[in-house]
Amino acid sequence: MTDTITLTGLVATTPRHLVTSEGLPITSFRLASTQRRYDRAAQKWIDGETNWYTITAFRHLAVNVVGSVAKGQRVVVTGRLRLRDWNNGERAGMTVEVDADALGHDLAWGTAVFTRSVSSSL
Amino acid sequence: MTDTITLTGLVATTPRHLVTSEGLPITSFRLASTQRRYDRAAQKWIDGETNWYTITAFRHLAVNVVGSVAKGQRVVVTGRLRLRDWNNGERAGMTVEVDADALGHDLAWGTAVFTRSVSSSL
Amino acid sequence: MTDTITLTGLVATTPRHLVTSEGLPITSFRLASTQRRYDRAAQKWIDGETNWYTITAFRHLAVNVVGSVAKGQRVVVTGRLRLRDWNNGERAGMTVEVDADALGHDLAWGTAVFTRSVSSSL
Amino acid sequence: MTDTITLTGLVATTPRHLVTSEGLPITSFRLASTQRRYDRAAQKWIDGETNWYTITAFRHLAVNVVGSVAKGQRVVVTGRLRLRDWNNGERAGMTVEVDADALGHDLAWGTAVFTRSVSSSL
Repeated sequence: MTDTITLTGLVATTPRHLVTSEGLPITSFRLASTQRRYDRAAQKWIDGETNWYTITAFRHLAVNVVGSVAKGQRVVVTGRLRLRDWNNGERAGMTVEVDADALGHDLAWGTAVFTRSVSSSL
Repeated sequence: MTDTITLTGLVATTPRHLVTSEGLPITSFRLASTQRRYDRAAQKWIDGETNWYTITAFRHLAVNVVGSVAKGQRVVVTGRLRLRDWNNGERAGMTVEVDADALGHDLAWGTAVFTRSVSSSL
Repeated sequence: MTDTITLTGLVATTPRHLVTSEGLPITSFRLASTQRRYDRAAQKWIDGETNWYTITAFRHLAVNVVGSVAKGQRVVVTGRLRLRDWNNGERAGMTVEVDADALGHDLAWGTAVFTRSVSSSL
Repeated sequence: MTDTITLTGLVATTPRHLVTSEGLPITSFRLASTQRRYDRAAQKWIDGETNWYTITAFRHLAVNVVGSVAKGQRVVVTGRLRLRDWNNGERAGMTVEVDADALGHDLAWGTAVFTRSVSSSL
């Protein structure tokens, strides 16, 4: 139940799609989520820092995301946060991933025409 | 920060749109959210009970929801929960509302064509 | 993954404890959660409406809550929201329950002395 | 409203407390949050990967956390996620912080004796 997060933000890269050798479809892209926060001193809302996430979708969601979502669009996504350290010998770092449970265009920013493709979600 | 909730579910009524005398656009519909839960005894996932919510959107989001979302579609919505008692003299009850911050079609169930209409969200 | 909510608020009733005939410990109490919201017109934070919840805990959590939590204390709780209609023949209504996954005293309001009682949580 | 997260986990370091030159109390510690996830293949729950967070508390919460929370205890915390890149000239990396809104001992793992110290939370 823990480490679940809901984000809204800007799709910052063209979604990349692949299918694993086991036949699992995966789609991923980078999301920029800029927080609005209330500045007590200034007594108003201001843009806060931007958090960068790698959003990853699987199965039906992966197929529909690559067919629907483009760089520059605004989305809402909910899923499970995963923090992963990496080390390629020369350099090391950390990626912050969200395994998406649900994802859609944020209608606060535009309209959408939806076409159902799945009779029962996996 | 509290009372924030993210839901996925089925749009159960045709969204209703109105504009208040102050010029505030409001759109609302009923959402059926059926939980999946893990049955320890049966050792498998089963459909749990269905929660019913009234989803309410304001401003740009209200306008775009009424122009995009139809009964029978699947959506993801995040917002603030409000529990309100009502009493009309003859009967009393409670409504469970979510004031939506973001809302979109759930791409786990289909594809969407998005058109941006807002340069800066209110 | 949906219908998960995190609340902070005031314990409004003395927690009630029972053990079912199957041996399952259950503890429940009422929680008053008063939202703080930003009033755009007044340009400041104000107290919003109060949401009332029935918080329910099971197993180890149930036993420790009844041994630790008293009416009037402030807590933080995360769990799954359940909306249940009831009808006793004469009257009908709805209860809003949260099945708690984790629950603790909110240290924004006081200090706590913790004693571990569980080697591995069920 | 976005980037809010609720975590449960193990306090992995002794909380460090300081007061800024402006008089703001700050307390921080490392939290290890091990996810439980359902393995579809094995048809059972297993321990997933561990996410590591830096939890930061301010004001009253900071004072009470340093007076209440010890390394090795289990807590529940809700707050805002902040991802920050750092670069000290020789090395670079990222820290994952949660600015806590509320924090308490997780009563799924033990009992607590609470003493109120704050009449109104800042």
